[in-house]
Amino acid sequence: MRLAPQATDNRRIAIEAVTPSVEGGRYPAKASLGERIRVEADCISDGHDAIAAVLLYRRERASQWTERRMVALPNDRWRAEFEPTGIGIYRFTIEAWVDHFATWADDLAIRIKADQDVRVDLQIGGGLIEAAAARSARPDSAELAAVAKRLNAGSRGRAGAIKLALSPELRALMDRNADRSRATRFERELQVVVDPELARFSAWYEMFPRSTGNGGEHGTFRTVAERLPYVAGMGFNVLYLPPIHPIGRTHRKGRNNAVTAAPDDVGSPWAIGSAEGGHKAVNPELGSLEDFALLVRTARGMGIEVALDIAFQCSPDHPYVKESPEWFRHRPDGTIQYAENPPKKYEDIYPFDFETSAWKSLWKELLSIFLYWADQGVRLFRVDNPHTKPFPFWEWVIAEVKRRHPETIFLSEAFTRPKIMYRLAKLGFTQSYTYFAWRNQKAELIEYFTELTSQPVRDFFRPNLWPNTPDILTDHLQHGGRPAFMSRLVLAATLGASYGIYGPAFEHGEAVATAPGREEYQNSEKYQLRNWRLTRPDSLRDYVALVNAIRRENLSLHTDRGLRFEPVDNDQLLAYSKVSEDGANLLLIVVNLDPYHTQSGFLEVPLHRWGIRPDQQFQVHDLIADARYSWRGWRNYVELNPFIQPAHIFRIQGRLRDETDFDAWN
Amino acid sequence: MRLAPQATDNRRIAIEAVTPSVEGGRYPAKASLGERIRVEADCISDGHDAIAAVLLYRRERASQWTERRMVALPNDRWRAEFEPTGIGIYRFTIEAWVDHFATWADDLAIRIKADQDVRVDLQIGGGLIEAAAARSARPDSAELAAVAKRLNAGSRGRAGAIKLALSPELRALMDRNADRSRATRFERELQVVVDPELARFSAWYEMFPRSTGNGGEHGTFRTVAERLPYVAGMGFNVLYLPPIHPIGRTHRKGRNNAVTAAPDDVGSPWAIGSAEGGHKAVNPELGSLEDFALLVRTARGMGIEVALDIAFQCSPDHPYVKESPEWFRHRPDGTIQYAENPPKKYEDIYPFDFETSAWKSLWKELLSIFLYWADQGVRLFRVDNPHTKPFPFWEWVIAEVKRRHPETIFLSEAFTRPKIMYRLAKLGFTQSYTYFAWRNQKAELIEYFTELTSQPVRDFFRPNLWPNTPDILTDHLQHGGRPAFMSRLVLAATLGASYGIYGPAFEHGEAVATAPGREEYQNSEKYQLRNWRLTRPDSLRDYVALVNAIRRENLSLHTDRGLRFEPVDNDQLLAYSKVSEDGANLLLIVVNLDPYHTQSGFLEVPLHRWGIRPDQQFQVHDLIADARYSWRGWRNYVELNPFIQPAHIFRIQGRLRDETDFDAWN
Repeated sequence: MRLAPQATDNRRIAIEAVTPSVEGGRYPAKASLGERIRVEADCISDGHDAIAAVLLYRRERASQWTERRMVALPNDRWRAEFEPTGIGIYRFTIEAWVDHFATWADDLAIRIKADQDVRVDLQIGGGLIEAAAARSARPDSAELAAVAKRLNAGSRGRAGAIKLALSPELRALMDRNADRSRATRFERELQVVVDPELARFSAWYEMFPRSTGNGGEHGTFRTVAERLPYVAGMGFNVLYLPPIHPIGRTHRKGRNNAVTAAPDDVGSPWAIGSAEGGHKAVNPELGSLEDFALLVRTARGMGIEVALDIAFQCSPDHPYVKESPEWFRHRPDGTIQYAENPPKKYEDIYPFDFETSAWKSLWKELLSIFLYWADQGVRLFRVDNPHTKPFPFWEWVIAEVKRRHPETIFLSEAFTRPKIMYRLAKLGFTQSYTYFAWRNQKAELIEYFTELTSQPVRDFFRPNLWPNTPDILTDHLQHGGRPAFMSRLVLAATLGASYGIYGPAFEHGEAVATAPGREEYQNSEKYQLRNWRLTRPDSLRDYVALVNAIRRENLSLHTDRGLRFEPVDNDQLLAYSKVSEDGANLLLIVVNLDPYHTQSGFLEVPLHRWGIRPDQQFQVHDLIADARYSWRGWRNYVELNPFIQPAHIFRIQGRLRDETDFDAWN
Repeated sequence: MRLAPQATDNRRIAIEAVTPSVEGGRYPAKASLGERIRVEADCISDGHDAIAAVLLYRRERASQWTERRMVALPNDRWRAEFEPTGIGIYRFTIEAWVDHFATWADDLAIRIKADQDVRVDLQIGGGLIEAAAARSARPDSAELAAVAKRLNAGSRGRAGAIKLALSPELRALMDRNADRSRATRFERELQVVVDPELARFSAWYEMFPRSTGNGGEHGTFRTVAERLPYVAGMGFNVLYLPPIHPIGRTHRKGRNNAVTAAPDDVGSPWAIGSAEGGHKAVNPELGSLEDFALLVRTARGMGIEVALDIAFQCSPDHPYVKESPEWFRHRPDGTIQYAENPPKKYEDIYPFDFETSAWKSLWKELLSIFLYWADQGVRLFRVDNPHTKPFPFWEWVIAEVKRRHPETIFLSEAFTRPKIMYRLAKLGFTQSYTYFAWRNQKAELIEYFTELTSQPVRDFFRPNLWPNTPDILTDHLQHGGRPAFMSRLVLAATLGASYGIYGPAFEHGEAVATAPGREEYQNSEKYQLRNWRLTRPDSLRDYVALVNAIRRENLSLHTDRGLRFEPVDNDQLLAYSKVSEDGANLLLIVVNLDPYHTQSGFLEVPLHRWGIRPDQQFQVHDLIADARYSWRGWRNYVELNPFIQPAHIFRIQGRLRDETDFDAWN
């Protein structure tokens, strides 16, 4: 009789539900330098025998696995952790086996307690240890053989034999030389991509270079460099520039998106390409490539990385249109297909035709754009509308760039349906824009951030939270005034480890849209220069600087993990705690979501989780107001007047009660 | 430059989250004859083009796929269904592609509404249709060519061309001849195992054959056959018999599990094997193999299938012990290892040693036991303690039996940790015992049955609900009296499509345990004969018969799907609705969980979901009391005196409002 294929062995352990795992291992999970990678799995077996499990991990090109013993959690879950030592791909898998020695030793202890005759049992144990001696090397083999001999010796020295049998030293020796001949190896090797710390913890500042000129002149890379102290002073570590390439003339848009431009209108930087060059050229009005490289170096010296905007589309004047017409779609009348969202037409933009039969040459050229700027020292790319280019292209191009420059960070600017945004993250984008700008109610903030910080999403999607962008001036900011800007800043900067603002519009509280119901800025910098007076007394720059300083000084804000919403009996007050993995940094943030009225309520303090006794007085330190309060008990009053201070960021002096509280760090 | 492996094509569609899928396709999902299989997937693409998707399915040995067009649900989810025509394995997968014609046609309609010049657009459409003509066969090709010609004709007959372009006939023609050259096929073929209807909908009655004798004599297969009208009269369709094999003498247990048996004690049927034979023999006191085969046939004639208990363990007297000592573990003192749970010893039972090097011959022998009884006409096996035998063995043996007898049903009697119970279900068990017996509180019933009836569990785990078994007389039944037996019966029979009772103990309300805090029956039939007086006036047999009749007559109770808990403002009242897939059969069940007191409360009726207007009077028919009530509005009073009637089973005369309410049938 034929044994069916699945009957080729009788390994007893099953390994299931391994995390992190993205789409069953099809994509790598995400991690970063400075954070431990926590691997968990269900390891189950028939019967009641003890189980042992190890995590095996290695860097992609290493040939040897490193092993970490897993520990048992409740409900047949097992866990181990490791801290990556470099960026790049790590592989891991799990091995587990029935631990006959542990089973035997645990049973022996029970038998002895029940005062049973254990003569035969000691011999059984002796046999297990003999077998271990046979498969191990010196010095373990000799030591094991000696122990086996004592256990097999029968009635002489029974008490000593029992003590030896149950000793931690013997257990460790047997663990080291376990019988793994019938171990189950998880059927897949899973991957984790380890990114630089900046992928996990970053504060972005978006700014139009051309608006940095003095006295209303066209800004240049040099005037941008002069602006760096301002940006660094606010505490940002990424400076993101909209496209810096030559801007098309044909169908150029005028101020406020007018269909025809005046002769001196500067046009939209996203209408890329002119006779002066395309995606690998710089707009001569901004300066030279050398100027740009100097800016990148100067910024880096001040702790700021420059992020470039990569928008894969062309103005009709882009050199590609003539040089590689096969990359564009041609209409039956001989014209090139412009961008459309029927009935709207965008005749200043030619999209690439990714369905062209020349797609391979197109892909290669687009890859070469990333590589070109990477060669200029750029490590961060904010990618415009990735959801309108095919998924396989992104998977390929990101892998190709990271193969050469593994430190590269790609921010996905996709505002589209959730599954598409998640797919882009899975296939390689390091960070992603989110729906944060439109989540203003307490319930929707809790729901959204619970989703983002729970598995599986947190394993592949790193949110980057923007209260505003040049395209997005939300209704809430239009009408909520200064309190809205302040509360949205605190939310962005503390709900996520990565966030950004578009300034100086943000810190200046720019709030006028082109029309009611629109999110377009009036006099948008997308179509014209702006001349910002940075010394305005009502600027929020000091508030931004304070919030960024609090971020830097509190480790719990350097990660998206460790977020928990806490109950407050007022729907306009949002409260959440952030705790670092070691429990040492513990914040309680309370934000008044209502920019118009003072709100107050009672907050439930999770005393037990924080290791604070019910009757214990403890100090909370508001890092924004630099005020200290003494609290006691689980119920505490909070009140926030949005015109004075719309948010508290309390640092709690308590400590997590118990490092093995598996839910505390989530 | 090398293209990375993932760059071998640029297919735009991604297919994710296909359901049903058990462990990523490692195991088949479960379905049964008479129910449609619903397949769903996320199909997403870059950009804004229309998508088309099809489900492909086939019986395992068929070479051709059958195709079903999928329909779009909200949030990029797609769905199609098919109804299996036979038992066995079905395979399915999904294919999806960008539908350029649909995109074009939808855009054309918008352009025309916006009064745009569509001359060029008509030519673009003409090109798409020409291409379809070229790849299709007659008569479609000719028809398509003619349409293309009209669209390309330019300004003459424009209105007619537009009408034609947007016609449903052309859309259907183009759908039939879609360009699928760049379609994405989901990377795996998933499986569904289609079982007989009995796998989905079954009412089990467990009974000790030896207790069916007249006047206290040892029962036989013939007296069991005489008992069949009693069992059929109560409406059961499965009669499950504890092991029918010869019972060991060595270390035989006496009444109430006494360690030594009196000479006339009958022993436990689970101590299998004596000089008279083992797992393929029948206990001579029960009769002959021919008697058994006659019982199976007689029962089948009355609509009852006989289920056998398969317990893979041996008494010390089992022939295997001498014939195949290599299947058992030997202790250093030369004895065979008996069953243990230290410090407890079960010396009347020898477990098989599945780690023996002779495991292949052991597996084959155990398979032959199933096949032996299958040859005697047995189609249902209740498998004792499967969680103490290796997972791979079960996967193999169930597959081997079903390869020859695909109609076979395996019930897993595993009361162990949740992940192990689920694993056994995944690897092939048709039905599974559950924690139902110990779920008595409203919150825990809601939580447990929500888990069991939600994905992923419902795709692989078919619960079989038992209020009692010979091993389990719960505290609730011990103290709750007749009301507890009635309410637990209604819960078992309506929360699950498969359930069972151990009788006559159940319908006789047997409630005395061996000791406080124990779940063992006093004078358990596991160790002695019982002589049941079936005509007892207080028997629940009529109530059981009524509940089983209600089950038969109401299609919503033939499946575990369509369950929803409904709010009642009393924690002792549990309310839930059951709806059939077509919405035609709609029940509202209300159970008083408190066996001691009358409980009342207001129930929220989901009028909108049921398609009943707020001001509409509707009739509810209590099928237990055969009473009819007129209700109106969303809030209705219910009151249940447990000593009169602990449960309502209302049939609602309303109808589901809308067949496309995707949540109504869940």
